[in-house]
Amino acid sequence: MFSYVPPIDDYRFLLTQVLRFDAAMAETGQAVDADLAVAVLEEAGRMCADRLHPLNRHGDEEGSRLVDGSVITPAGFADAWRDFVAAGWASMSADPAHGGQGLPFILQLWLDEMLSATNLSFGLFPGLTRGACEAIAAHADDALKSVYLPRMVNGEWTGAMALTESGAGTDLALLKTRAVPQGDGSFAVTGQKIFISSGDHDFGGNIVHLVLARLPDAPAGVKGISLFLVPKYLPDADGEFTMRNGMSVGALEKKMGIHAQPTCVMNYDEATGWLVGAPNRGLAAMFTMMNAERLMVGIQGLGVAGAAYQQAAGYAKERLQGRSADGARGPVAIIDHADVRRMLLNIRAFVEAGRALGGWTALQLDRAHHHPDAAERAKADALVALLTPVVKAAFTDFGFDSAVQAQQVFGGHGYIREWGMEQYVRDARIAQIYEGTNGVQAMDLVGRKLAMAGGAVVDGYFDLIAADVDAAGAIDIAIKTRAALALLRTTTASLQGAHGDAAGAAAVDYLRLFALVSMGWMWTRMAVAAQGDDVLHAGKRIVADFFAQRMLPQAQSLAVSIAAGEASIMALGADCF
Amino acid sequence: MFSYVPPIDDYRFLLTQVLRFDAAMAETGQAVDADLAVAVLEEAGRMCADRLHPLNRHGDEEGSRLVDGSVITPAGFADAWRDFVAAGWASMSADPAHGGQGLPFILQLWLDEMLSATNLSFGLFPGLTRGACEAIAAHADDALKSVYLPRMVNGEWTGAMALTESGAGTDLALLKTRAVPQGDGSFAVTGQKIFISSGDHDFGGNIVHLVLARLPDAPAGVKGISLFLVPKYLPDADGEFTMRNGMSVGALEKKMGIHAQPTCVMNYDEATGWLVGAPNRGLAAMFTMMNAERLMVGIQGLGVAGAAYQQAAGYAKERLQGRSADGARGPVAIIDHADVRRMLLNIRAFVEAGRALGGWTALQLDRAHHHPDAAERAKADALVALLTPVVKAAFTDFGFDSAVQAQQVFGGHGYIREWGMEQYVRDARIAQIYEGTNGVQAMDLVGRKLAMAGGAVVDGYFDLIAADVDAAGAIDIAIKTRAALALLRTTTASLQGAHGDAAGAAAVDYLRLFALVSMGWMWTRMAVAAQGDDVLHAGKRIVADFFAQRMLPQAQSLAVSIAAGEASIMALGADCF
Repeated sequence: MFSYVPPIDDYRFLLTQVLRFDAAMAETGQAVDADLAVAVLEEAGRMCADRLHPLNRHGDEEGSRLVDGSVITPAGFADAWRDFVAAGWASMSADPAHGGQGLPFILQLWLDEMLSATNLSFGLFPGLTRGACEAIAAHADDALKSVYLPRMVNGEWTGAMALTESGAGTDLALLKTRAVPQGDGSFAVTGQKIFISSGDHDFGGNIVHLVLARLPDAPAGVKGISLFLVPKYLPDADGEFTMRNGMSVGALEKKMGIHAQPTCVMNYDEATGWLVGAPNRGLAAMFTMMNAERLMVGIQGLGVAGAAYQQAAGYAKERLQGRSADGARGPVAIIDHADVRRMLLNIRAFVEAGRALGGWTALQLDRAHHHPDAAERAKADALVALLTPVVKAAFTDFGFDSAVQAQQVFGGHGYIREWGMEQYVRDARIAQIYEGTNGVQAMDLVGRKLAMAGGAVVDGYFDLIAADVDAAGAIDIAIKTRAALALLRTTTASLQGAHGDAAGAAAVDYLRLFALVSMGWMWTRMAVAAQGDDVLHAGKRIVADFFAQRMLPQAQSLAVSIAAGEASIMALGADCF
Repeated sequence: MFSYVPPIDDYRFLLTQVLRFDAAMAETGQAVDADLAVAVLEEAGRMCADRLHPLNRHGDEEGSRLVDGSVITPAGFADAWRDFVAAGWASMSADPAHGGQGLPFILQLWLDEMLSATNLSFGLFPGLTRGACEAIAAHADDALKSVYLPRMVNGEWTGAMALTESGAGTDLALLKTRAVPQGDGSFAVTGQKIFISSGDHDFGGNIVHLVLARLPDAPAGVKGISLFLVPKYLPDADGEFTMRNGMSVGALEKKMGIHAQPTCVMNYDEATGWLVGAPNRGLAAMFTMMNAERLMVGIQGLGVAGAAYQQAAGYAKERLQGRSADGARGPVAIIDHADVRRMLLNIRAFVEAGRALGGWTALQLDRAHHHPDAAERAKADALVALLTPVVKAAFTDFGFDSAVQAQQVFGGHGYIREWGMEQYVRDARIAQIYEGTNGVQAMDLVGRKLAMAGGAVVDGYFDLIAADVDAAGAIDIAIKTRAALALLRTTTASLQGAHGDAAGAAAVDYLRLFALVSMGWMWTRMAVAAQGDDVLHAGKRIVADFFAQRMLPQAQSLAVSIAAGEASIMALGADCF
């Protein structure tokens, strides 16, 4: 396996030449410039490359295990966690009010990329903790906040989200876990949850579960769900968290991948918990977590794709097979074969555009939090809401396809475990499923996000794209992105107000079309910015051409498929499947 | 896990209403009619569903193991093999001259579909044995044939293909295994081979390896490769095969999937072997095996897709989540959701067209062997050569995508092992890689097959399609297939004579375009044949519409991508990847 090279040059290019980072920070009043940002990313990259990448394959082989009711993570994970926390990475982007460092979210996002690239299983621990912190910060009362947030923000304690039950996944209306008031402000939570990432571990410290449950008098359906904070350890008489709560790991899920990550079946047996947010408003609190997590999960797809690309490119430059295209030389490195390059370029064209689009979205998130003008904050917030399902679903779909193509570059050597390529495929697969399947993301985009502000949000986003491609002049990527944007606008207009089967039939293809145009936008911006003769700039122009000529044409087929509507999808009787 | 339902109704429909099986058999003089064929398939389906399907998940969990140098297959596999052989399935399509039953190849192909659907790992044992038999029958001398063929054909002994070495996969020119004459007509074979499916097992009987190696005076490159028959057991003085040959299993490959299949690292240490075919002509003999295997591997993709569809459709009809599209009912079975249907229909539109196209190709193979007219035999043989890379690559690509989509229908329950969906994904993945990666198949299609008879073979194939879509009248699938065929013809013309990078850059997209049009052809034929009101006929018409409207549009994007050429793929310096 090759070592992992953090994409620092690309981050610097994006910050300084594409995303106008310093200007953005000046607008939001955040005291960070590109030099500092790059320095932070370099340090983060070293940690990921040196500490987490070497643990990745071993973590997959050993896996987390359940021994006498407790989770044992693979050798090296607990030490890595302690070092990760000690170096301050857990608290990087958290609110200084709770002990965080308040660095811009774009740095968090790219740290997440490198975490996912080097160790997806490990990266879930800080990721879920962060999501839990956000929900607690936004919805819990001050007493809970003051006890839990500082120790979760600094990484001493970790978080877990306990939503899914065996009969209630996408449809949380069906959940059955119950919470009964104990008369002292706390609740007794009873039920079983499945698929609970980071539900238990051996890193030390408390594990704070946010559990969806129903109050005794709750209405049926999603309007009767509340959120509870249920810690593994409760405070004793001295206020030390030494008493085990009534919760236990029933089993570890046996999964396709992310074997190092302890995905738990959790049993809550009159476990003591406290309400987070208002009664019966748990879903709103949950979505605070979920939206942050969804961006992170999208970035997981990006991270794995980037790592798989590096491995495949490294292998393709060393592996000798076949003759040169003119037949004159052989054996040649397989990087000389057009089809191998095509696979690598497919990955790269996604990864670099995804990195840019993710970065752009993260800057909007910073803007939504920090811009002095409330109208600007609202505008940015709406753009983040629009892009969240796109980043989640498209990045994880392209990410999985990227891992598969990188594996293909290795031929038979990709199918055996030796090189770690099949692990990337198995690990990447989960990101298309959890935090709302990609089908659910697509429905969110078509059913809810297109309708925001009567369509003004999505129109405004398209206007941003149009402005940049129009300003780019007659370069191929701009011309082709402009044409694809026109298709996207027409398709969007046809779906405004669509609901039910019409929306559902179109959703996944529409999200992909939306993502392709968004990537074309980023390639246009990058190509415009990359006018130098150096390797990075020249490479950007070439990959922009590749994207324009070999990937963006999919937009046409997608528009045709969407326009065909739902008739052929709904015609077959359910019993005829 | 749901039980497996053999697709007998679909086979009957194809035989009697689409492929004109009885007429085809009459032309080739094969004494089999559709009634007998269906009866054979029913019996085969029972065996696959009742014996092999229940072993599949367990086979994955237990895996094959190497104990004291010998392979132990998962519990139940050896018994299943004995029953499989006793019932005559191993010899079904083999030449009666060698003890086979001489049934038409179309029955073999659909048996392979059901084997792959129920137990891909198991299906490789008879599949590889059959390939080895074909190479021996075509190239070995009578002495070898008389000793080995009868016992391999009846399944008493099995076969294995030993081609790949760690430094020689796609490019066999680099292989290093050596064969030295021993003066008695035999050779001492020495070297290491990797990725050897069915290299050893505990089914009893001999294991006959066909090994590629170099003679001492062999020219360099592919023109210096010979094929040797190297059995695990050599005859003793009494002619009984009791003496171990100088070959051993060095290790079992640790793989992403097909865990029950013992994929061996094989060490040959002056192992005794005999030349199959002429010295230095091993590649030709190998391709006799490979071509048969490639069709079978394509059918593996089809088989897994069909099985995964059945599981996903079964689950979708039982799993309750969400509300009906009008919001009035809930929870509803997820089969009511348009996006779930879309995924299922994607799979089904491939599986049913693939089953038809595979059957059509198999009938050509029967024709190539049995038609009384030599010109007809040659014509059919050329069509099989043209279709072989398409079936291998497209069916395994669609097959893998199908397994992934079927897994997606299960949400989180698809990622854990419980339902077996993640096994389908892991198992299906190998078929895109072995027997020549799908990139190699695409290069074979563009680089060699399009040029056959100066382009007359591919033109003749397109004429067959044109005749059927023209005769079909103004139904949607025929109209859209006709348009896609026009694109394919234009694209084909642009690639005739292409070589090197131009061919390599286009190949994979071109093969997919070719496959989509071929599937459109089969959907046209099925839609025309299915004019009844029964569930099967009505379903065919609906899925034909779905294919026409939601999958076939990809043809347009592919044609555009191919037309863009190789410039953006070749522009980047190799060291810039």
